[in-house]
Amino acid sequence: MTITRVGFIGLGIMGAPMAANLLRAGFDVTVWNRSPSRTAPLLEARANGADSPADVAAASEVTLSCVTNSGDVEEVALGPGGVIEGAKPGSAYIDCSTIAPETARKVAAALAKRGVAMLDAPVSGGDIGAQAGTLAIMVGGEEETFERCLPVLQAMGKTIVHVGPSGAGQVVKLCNQIAGALNLLAAAEAIGLARRAGVDPNKMLEVVSAGAAGSWMLSNLAPRAVRGDYAPGFMVDLMQKDLRLVLDAANETHTPLPGAALVSQLFQSIQAERRGTDGTQALVDAIAKLAR
Amino acid sequence: MTITRVGFIGLGIMGAPMAANLLRAGFDVTVWNRSPSRTAPLLEARANGADSPADVAAASEVTLSCVTNSGDVEEVALGPGGVIEGAKPGSAYIDCSTIAPETARKVAAALAKRGVAMLDAPVSGGDIGAQAGTLAIMVGGEEETFERCLPVLQAMGKTIVHVGPSGAGQVVKLCNQIAGALNLLAAAEAIGLARRAGVDPNKMLEVVSAGAAGSWMLSNLAPRAVRGDYAPGFMVDLMQKDLRLVLDAANETHTPLPGAALVSQLFQSIQAERRGTDGTQALVDAIAKLAR
Amino acid sequence: MTITRVGFIGLGIMGAPMAANLLRAGFDVTVWNRSPSRTAPLLEARANGADSPADVAAASEVTLSCVTNSGDVEEVALGPGGVIEGAKPGSAYIDCSTIAPETARKVAAALAKRGVAMLDAPVSGGDIGAQAGTLAIMVGGEEETFERCLPVLQAMGKTIVHVGPSGAGQVVKLCNQIAGALNLLAAAEAIGLARRAGVDPNKMLEVVSAGAAGSWMLSNLAPRAVRGDYAPGFMVDLMQKDLRLVLDAANETHTPLPGAALVSQLFQSIQAERRGTDGTQALVDAIAKLAR
Amino acid sequence: MTITRVGFIGLGIMGAPMAANLLRAGFDVTVWNRSPSRTAPLLEARANGADSPADVAAASEVTLSCVTNSGDVEEVALGPGGVIEGAKPGSAYIDCSTIAPETARKVAAALAKRGVAMLDAPVSGGDIGAQAGTLAIMVGGEEETFERCLPVLQAMGKTIVHVGPSGAGQVVKLCNQIAGALNLLAAAEAIGLARRAGVDPNKMLEVVSAGAAGSWMLSNLAPRAVRGDYAPGFMVDLMQKDLRLVLDAANETHTPLPGAALVSQLFQSIQAERRGTDGTQALVDAIAKLAR
Repeated sequence: MTITRVGFIGLGIMGAPMAANLLRAGFDVTVWNRSPSRTAPLLEARANGADSPADVAAASEVTLSCVTNSGDVEEVALGPGGVIEGAKPGSAYIDCSTIAPETARKVAAALAKRGVAMLDAPVSGGDIGAQAGTLAIMVGGEEETFERCLPVLQAMGKTIVHVGPSGAGQVVKLCNQIAGALNLLAAAEAIGLARRAGVDPNKMLEVVSAGAAGSWMLSNLAPRAVRGDYAPGFMVDLMQKDLRLVLDAANETHTPLPGAALVSQLFQSIQAERRGTDGTQALVDAIAKLAR
Repeated sequence: MTITRVGFIGLGIMGAPMAANLLRAGFDVTVWNRSPSRTAPLLEARANGADSPADVAAASEVTLSCVTNSGDVEEVALGPGGVIEGAKPGSAYIDCSTIAPETARKVAAALAKRGVAMLDAPVSGGDIGAQAGTLAIMVGGEEETFERCLPVLQAMGKTIVHVGPSGAGQVVKLCNQIAGALNLLAAAEAIGLARRAGVDPNKMLEVVSAGAAGSWMLSNLAPRAVRGDYAPGFMVDLMQKDLRLVLDAANETHTPLPGAALVSQLFQSIQAERRGTDGTQALVDAIAKLAR
Repeated sequence: MTITRVGFIGLGIMGAPMAANLLRAGFDVTVWNRSPSRTAPLLEARANGADSPADVAAASEVTLSCVTNSGDVEEVALGPGGVIEGAKPGSAYIDCSTIAPETARKVAAALAKRGVAMLDAPVSGGDIGAQAGTLAIMVGGEEETFERCLPVLQAMGKTIVHVGPSGAGQVVKLCNQIAGALNLLAAAEAIGLARRAGVDPNKMLEVVSAGAAGSWMLSNLAPRAVRGDYAPGFMVDLMQKDLRLVLDAANETHTPLPGAALVSQLFQSIQAERRGTDGTQALVDAIAKLAR
Repeated sequence: MTITRVGFIGLGIMGAPMAANLLRAGFDVTVWNRSPSRTAPLLEARANGADSPADVAAASEVTLSCVTNSGDVEEVALGPGGVIEGAKPGSAYIDCSTIAPETARKVAAALAKRGVAMLDAPVSGGDIGAQAGTLAIMVGGEEETFERCLPVLQAMGKTIVHVGPSGAGQVVKLCNQIAGALNLLAAAEAIGLARRAGVDPNKMLEVVSAGAAGSWMLSNLAPRAVRGDYAPGFMVDLMQKDLRLVLDAANETHTPLPGAALVSQLFQSIQAERRGTDGTQALVDAIAKLAR
């Protein structure tokens, strides 16, 4: 049975372009956002409006959400007027937010009792990836649900991997944030030494990026930091929110992560300067600050 | 004036294939190695033998070396029977070893008094890059010398960047090692959390590698660690040698590098297991050890 | 007006001897504990029983509590049958638990609306200090309330300092835990190097304790770890609970604490061995584990 | 056989008062210093002058030295005009400098061939302890030599412990520096959180010092930092010299010391401000810098 009717809850900097890509792919899309003003552009693009997450779910075979944190997901999924009140047995719910794995599992268990299958499907790739439909999507949940919902996910992303049962998508997203944050620290310390030793950091980045020490962060964000461009791809405050989820998961599983713990403390140095809305490349300045 | 006669001192795992590529490119190559047995394959390939670094230099317009540490470079360049005793004014000396920037500057200054120009030109890319002639080469020294020697370097590498004056090549190599080591820590901690949280690390690597947290290390070395393959691309003992140069440079320039300092301590945990000759992907086991 | 009637909520390993010392000092003491069995020894010692925290507060001029975490304090203070329901205007509430400073402030604000003054008064010194009446007590709240309640506090502790307004006592307790945890790391690393370098750690501790590198932890807990005695003064699990409060406070105030973050990750290595109920001196084994 | 004639090489901020205490204790003392001007006060106090370390040794049953680093010890002991050239078989040499354990062992082995026994006997307690004769002295070498030289050591120190064979004294001194540096980090982070959370750091120090988180550093150096007094007891530059010996020893024995590595990087932040001659309590400012 082909899915034709999908819903989208949360039309922020990520959700709005993801919903637009679902429209573009030919799905019949129903949308809702906490502050209604953000729905207008999608309604103009022929999306359907709804009065609540429950209404979205009632109109949809697959309902997606992309909100800020664990509390938001609990509210739109299980709260008054939430997905659980409208979703029909046999339908699916896909949450694309980055939240605690245990919250994902808890919501999935509650929905399962109503016959609604859930996938946790956090994304990586930023607003540009959301707009281009090239997101990486890491998906937790049952294989059957994943297969069924794959066409919906393919309208939004390019690398889509089923990584395990409920919650596994969130675990992988946390692994992604560990790696991203430490790759940024790698860039920050390399730039720090280059500058203090009198070497042009751009030339350093040019050659280091080409070899075994290269990374997406080194190629893409490090040059911005070197030229003093701190416009956010991904904001420091959001990275810190995610690193706290990382360290919470580390605590729960008793996995020592000394590097992730260090980089989280260094990001606080940027937040202490009230630069939490800068892009994560600002980490370069935490090392620079220590060296002067 | 085109360079035709080049010399090569130090025919180890890196030097031998680099010298072979110079032969392949049509240069007339004279070689020397501390233990003579390693010269045989190159002599068979029509390289010329020599009795000392001085003899190599006497026969060459450009003399290269690739040895283990700062002391080795001082010895082959300035010691008895060293390059300085044979090199003609107007010739050039290119050292491709990874050594302290200050040693590079000291040797360059000593050779300059004899009219011999020096480049510090450490490389990145491992034995595979050396064989394929695709090394990244980061070059410090005078612009004019760099331009003159470029054809020689192009026979061995692909990304060749003049990064600044004498010593700057070594500084950039140290930046490269900082970034590489921290990208490895990123992989180790991501794998650590995935495993402890019950997620298949291979699936995690597949999706994380595709996005903004991707790196060469994550794509190339991390999967080896996951399958228990610790064969060295680059050995832990050598990484530690380089990280000590990094931390020495940090001390001299008063550049705090908390991440590099941390990863160096974690590599010691692998050395404590007498696994210093494992590949650097063994760092994954230092995090794993802490979590059990 | 002299205080004669005091209440005590929470008769655990700390609370029971603290309440006993209040009885010993001549106060008329009313007690309550979640699991009633723990009240028996105090009732035998002529304490009065009560049916709820509200009942305790109704019978007391000053009501104290010593429970496990922020949630427990909110419940006994503000929950159904809580202190707020029984306490008379003009009475005081002193919480001796270690909790988040912001929870202390929130409870104080709620009680203030009913005319009940609150002190946050976490303690240091362990069960031995609780029994001996020699606790260090760090007190936040209004000066007037502190002065009024001082005789009650003096029955339980020796070093009693009013450190600032509501919440300040908890902040100072968190500072105490930072210092204690890092002093333990100091001991663990010193013992680690001594052992690996072939030196008797007891002789090391003897001479280091005598000088400028000495600490309570080095003198008191380190020798236990050296002889393999991991019986808890203070359990690893509780230290980790407190370090999470520390790191939460660091996040809220944007205070980078790289050392505290590191030591928290190392304690997880002990918890990963299911040794969370060992004493904090087990940290020595986290360093030892890395070195083998 | 009672020792009456002792020599002292190196009359710096530590050596001069140590030599003075030997005179005060009734020994016949012969002195030498690289820059002769510093010998004058001791000659006035009836010490004997000498032209070289060899001359000192020739005149002495026990020759002591207190110089800056490993190279200095090698020079005064084994260099031209060194102790080895003057010392008689059966005499002893005691080095009180803080140097690499392996240098101590190397010098001891060279002297042993001439029948001269060596003790490595680094000290703790600063210039004040040197003046007061209350130093802690950690002694490596043979038991018999230790017993024979004890009266000499007792003229300079109070806690004098024979900790093991040659080199063990230096190992223990390195353990001492690990503990001291991390206890300082404990103080720095506690002060950092107190300030950011709006609590008077002096009140925090008052109560924390009294309990299980107390240390010599917290009681003695932390209050200086709080009031902005950075006058050196022990200078940052010297602590960094010692921490490099620590990390060298960690490398040689493959003992991961993540805390010591971190604190060394943070001290660099003080050196980057050209404050290497400030006292080690300046570490408080490295944490403060990160938090603003």
